[in-house]
Amino acid sequence: MTRTDPDRLVMKFGGTSMGDLERIRRAARIVAAEAASGRKIAVVVSAMAGKTNELVAWTDGAGRPGPGVELSDDEYDVVVASGEQVTAGLLALTLRNMGLNARTWMGWQIPILTDDAHGRARIEDVPGEVLGAAMDSGQIAVVPGFQGVTRDGRITTLGRGGSDTSAVAVAAALECPCDIYTDVDGVYTTDPRIEGKARRLEKVSYEEMLEMASLGAKVLQTRSVELAMAKQVPVRVLSSFIEPDAPVPGKEWGVMPDKGGTLICDEEEIVEKRIVSGVTMSRDEARITLLGLADRVDAPADVFTRLAEANVNVDMIVQGQARTEGTVNLTFTTGRRDAQRAAELMRAAQAEIRFEELRVDEDVAKVSVVGVGMRSHAGVAQTMFKALSDKGVKFQAISTSEIKISVLIDAAYAELAVRALHSAYGLEAV
Amino acid sequence: MTRTDPDRLVMKFGGTSMGDLERIRRAARIVAAEAASGRKIAVVVSAMAGKTNELVAWTDGAGRPGPGVELSDDEYDVVVASGEQVTAGLLALTLRNMGLNARTWMGWQIPILTDDAHGRARIEDVPGEVLGAAMDSGQIAVVPGFQGVTRDGRITTLGRGGSDTSAVAVAAALECPCDIYTDVDGVYTTDPRIEGKARRLEKVSYEEMLEMASLGAKVLQTRSVELAMAKQVPVRVLSSFIEPDAPVPGKEWGVMPDKGGTLICDEEEIVEKRIVSGVTMSRDEARITLLGLADRVDAPADVFTRLAEANVNVDMIVQGQARTEGTVNLTFTTGRRDAQRAAELMRAAQAEIRFEELRVDEDVAKVSVVGVGMRSHAGVAQTMFKALSDKGVKFQAISTSEIKISVLIDAAYAELAVRALHSAYGLEAV
Repeated sequence: MTRTDPDRLVMKFGGTSMGDLERIRRAARIVAAEAASGRKIAVVVSAMAGKTNELVAWTDGAGRPGPGVELSDDEYDVVVASGEQVTAGLLALTLRNMGLNARTWMGWQIPILTDDAHGRARIEDVPGEVLGAAMDSGQIAVVPGFQGVTRDGRITTLGRGGSDTSAVAVAAALECPCDIYTDVDGVYTTDPRIEGKARRLEKVSYEEMLEMASLGAKVLQTRSVELAMAKQVPVRVLSSFIEPDAPVPGKEWGVMPDKGGTLICDEEEIVEKRIVSGVTMSRDEARITLLGLADRVDAPADVFTRLAEANVNVDMIVQGQARTEGTVNLTFTTGRRDAQRAAELMRAAQAEIRFEELRVDEDVAKVSVVGVGMRSHAGVAQTMFKALSDKGVKFQAISTSEIKISVLIDAAYAELAVRALHSAYGLEAV
Repeated sequence: MTRTDPDRLVMKFGGTSMGDLERIRRAARIVAAEAASGRKIAVVVSAMAGKTNELVAWTDGAGRPGPGVELSDDEYDVVVASGEQVTAGLLALTLRNMGLNARTWMGWQIPILTDDAHGRARIEDVPGEVLGAAMDSGQIAVVPGFQGVTRDGRITTLGRGGSDTSAVAVAAALECPCDIYTDVDGVYTTDPRIEGKARRLEKVSYEEMLEMASLGAKVLQTRSVELAMAKQVPVRVLSSFIEPDAPVPGKEWGVMPDKGGTLICDEEEIVEKRIVSGVTMSRDEARITLLGLADRVDAPADVFTRLAEANVNVDMIVQGQARTEGTVNLTFTTGRRDAQRAAELMRAAQAEIRFEELRVDEDVAKVSVVGVGMRSHAGVAQTMFKALSDKGVKFQAISTSEIKISVLIDAAYAELAVRALHSAYGLEAV
């Protein structure tokens, strides 16, 4: 395991927390309270809420190369990376105005080195020396999230939600934990808007968080969890509405209270073993069925190769008997935004693939249960299927991994299914 | 004289020309038409009109260190430099969308090296090699104005109007001319809003332009004219409302028409010799009078040393007899925004300086005539004084240089005086 320096801390604030000057001041008070406890701080910030959308809209209007136009998104990145530069500067000014020593470090100054996949770049290396030395000298380092730089010095951005990944990458470079401030106060057993009895998890393992993020829990960007797991960075998700305790005399900020939130960490560090940690739900699914597919042995391979070549991710797959002799029905699911493209691909190759009819159904939802305890416990799937059938919920497809089971159901039953499963696994707050 | 490469051209567009996507497209058509003529182009851009003000207001709200707080403006620069980054990226995208090869070069990428006087940095060096090589390879270089970088890699800004200076500095580095597109179509003999008969000058010398810029003609930032003169960069001021001629078949832009505008160049290149080239007017003046100043020999030195130490620039100075025996009246002018500070300085030191009364008058204007022909012509001042006295305009102070005469008058007579002088020197359009 990587060395974790308890004297250093990376704090990340999202777009809502940077939404206006008053919110920036609130974030600054939290940073000041942490700094007052003696920790060396780096802060990673998003752009003001809505700002990135505005910048993206401008690039669209200016003629951002569309699909089919083989031009790089390098200038798109120049435009949209500016939003985080603004909030980083404003937070540094606010901290200085409170009497603290702070300065910004742009992606190109640290540097946060990425590949050159503009618009969705991946971080390749973050040298921690310069930032670490500044922090050791007593300076709070403020870093714009979402942005990086290629090895030949061009600005890149990491794609939506990229600031979470920036924060984890900086924490990995500094070998320290990462606190991610959001508009929720942690990771819950399920979405509290669906199930009022949802309970905040004190700890959740990297693997579970990764599944939950992929399966529709929108707390963290999936890539940031992958990186935290790979680099063993302890990540705490907590509320930016926390207020430091009463101000220290002569200062306008106080000391940090118990931070609460949810710690995302290694499985071994979780004492309380659960079979299932959470229930997730996603409506971002579509089901495509090829009816009367010629029963050639290579037919599924043909279908899925075509989809893979067009970068369409397929999740669940079910093959069943069809009415017509010598044919089968092949059902698969994709993300909803890929569904029409997948359907067009199939229709265009209908003569080669040989199927009778194609159906697209976007009125579906995917409900999943996630938990590392599944590895050692039998009967998890039976509990799920019984809970759903007791409520009359039929499932159209199933997919599993070592630590999750997902079912595709009629979208109308989604919330009902979530509540039934939450109760069946005993996840309610006590 | 510096070599001037006629194949290269720097074009600069201000905030109005970058105000929205439609205006950016208009600027892009002008750039495309120049490029179509075979020239190698670098474009320098300002932020969208109003954007810099918004960013500055945010830094104020975040607690930009005020007067008396000895903190650097380095983070102010991080915030406000972002506006030009956005328009540079949008213009590059627009040019690419028109099928042209373009890319942005940030201040730190070229680099545009400045000193570390954040918020009002001065350009120290612009290496032209990288930019020139990109242009030689057929790429249009788009450069955000107003921004630079210190030798230790921190973002700086050049102060208001700094994009003009950026453009001239880039042109000097590339050893080529500089076209500055503005919302006026050139430099006029006087402000056409005051005198309808004002005439556009085809050429004006650096020295005259420098005086006119300092004296209230707002076409170009003074510093940019100084730099153009020092580096012998031919600068053309012209209208961004120019439209290239009918589009070339298959393209959405046409060829450049006669550009018109005003060329700012060396005095020797101007064939038509004029005695006076222009009449300017500024209301940004204030008059301060110390009444009953003790008639010590070192009293004026005492006063002006105190003002200089507080960075208050003094323009005109008049000393006259006072009513009280053994005292004089000392009148001087400052920029209007410095007037109250200057008055407070004087009042605070009243006992040491020894004067009876202080008066501040902001109801004044400075009217000036400028022309390199004055060097070799007598009678210029007499013409001025006669024209003003014929209209009953009294003058309160006078200052002169080799190529200009300025008079301070009651603000109510300012426009009248401008028209009288414009006519007296025969500057009307014919």
